[in-house]
Amino acid sequence: MKNQLFNEQNFPYICTPLTGKNTEEIMRELTNILPKNPDLIEWRVDFYKEINDFNQVLVTAEKIAAQSSGLPLLFTIRSHKEGGESIPLSEEERVELLSQVCQSEFVDIIDIELSSEPEHIKHVREVSEKYGKKLILSYHNFECTPEKADLRKRLSMMESYGADIAKAAVMPKNQKDVLTLLEVTSKAKEELNIPLITMSMGDVGSLSRMLGWFYGSAVTFAVGEKSSAPGQIPIEDLRKVIELIKKPMGY
Amino acid sequence: MKNQLFNEQNFPYICTPLTGKNTEEIMRELTNILPKNPDLIEWRVDFYKEINDFNQVLVTAEKIAAQSSGLPLLFTIRSHKEGGESIPLSEEERVELLSQVCQSEFVDIIDIELSSEPEHIKHVREVSEKYGKKLILSYHNFECTPEKADLRKRLSMMESYGADIAKAAVMPKNQKDVLTLLEVTSKAKEELNIPLITMSMGDVGSLSRMLGWFYGSAVTFAVGEKSSAPGQIPIEDLRKVIELIKKPMGY
Repeated sequence: MKNQLFNEQNFPYICTPLTGKNTEEIMRELTNILPKNPDLIEWRVDFYKEINDFNQVLVTAEKIAAQSSGLPLLFTIRSHKEGGESIPLSEEERVELLSQVCQSEFVDIIDIELSSEPEHIKHVREVSEKYGKKLILSYHNFECTPEKADLRKRLSMMESYGADIAKAAVMPKNQKDVLTLLEVTSKAKEELNIPLITMSMGDVGSLSRMLGWFYGSAVTFAVGEKSSAPGQIPIEDLRKVIELIKKPMGY
Repeated sequence: MKNQLFNEQNFPYICTPLTGKNTEEIMRELTNILPKNPDLIEWRVDFYKEINDFNQVLVTAEKIAAQSSGLPLLFTIRSHKEGGESIPLSEEERVELLSQVCQSEFVDIIDIELSSEPEHIKHVREVSEKYGKKLILSYHNFECTPEKADLRKRLSMMESYGADIAKAAVMPKNQKDVLTLLEVTSKAKEELNIPLITMSMGDVGSLSRMLGWFYGSAVTFAVGEKSSAPGQIPIEDLRKVIELIKKPMGY
């Protein structure tokens, strides 16, 4: 799916998150989002109140997949310490849920954080590989933008773990931090052999959501119905601004 | 005029060039450009075929000023070696024309290149100061983007010469060079006490024309009728993309 999904000519792919707290809300969100033609759907399962009922999670994943007619579905349980909602699952249960989801046919990509226990990452990598799911390893920093070398090392570690996609979302303290993130992305694109998803968050960082693709970020997250992270902008505005940026470049 | 013209809250000011080869063409350009509401008009006098008739140049400057009802007029004789047209004037004649224009009431800002003879720059600075005109010292590189330290030094030299505005336009060889230009701009904004105008040229550099303001570039050049440098984009597109970039930042 890597080639199929992430053709550089089509950068950036636009992903819209589903953040409903129950199946009904999620399906309503999806109904409103689909006419806006996102390229991927991310289900942020940490928002889902029945997350501890794995069977119910799978039933909902099936419904999402059925309704979104072929759009790749990214399944993410964002941890609280990396910007997600509080969930009633232990780390082991979270890994178990990811494993079960990998064995279903409803999900295409799963996300697990680089900060997870190494054995958990390895396990999730094995299961996802076995069942043909793509794996995003991710890093989120809501405090600051780490040094270039630090960020590059994290992205490189993701590749070492066998990730199909390496993701980093960091917070800028000023305009220059946005350039740092873009520069790291540009460099990592040369150094690594897997697609990247990077962004600088918040109001100042919103710029990176519009032009990160130009520096090698394959996917940008946009608001369909509701933002799932600071700085996300509406999909309609994002699409327009990308079109205007591309125009003089002859895309 | 510095404060009046370059209030950071209003960054970027949009400047459209006039590149007609005779008065009739220039006046027609101006008629077409004015409804697009640029913030400044630049007359690129090196395109003007009667440039050696100083009286005629002044008459045309008067006509431009009369028709553009209060918009600041920037008077630029771009030298051939910095991307301008070939002109039949010697360096001394160029300086003489700039001096005469300073003494008129039709022009608000003049531009002279940092690569000019130091005594020419000093003379033009004196005359422009005496007659209340603002002075842009400029640097253009159509080959590459110099190292950060080199670029910063040039901008700093402009301030040392007493420029009211420091301008640098450079050519990127790749995406990263655009970040270099933005980073230098951001740094120079902290270090210098005069407004900056910076851009990365060409297709790849067009990005900097859209977001350079966010890093401290006061003015961006847009196509009204005809481009005067590579990578300039139509004023309508530029205004729209800037609006979309600013929106999530709460401007």
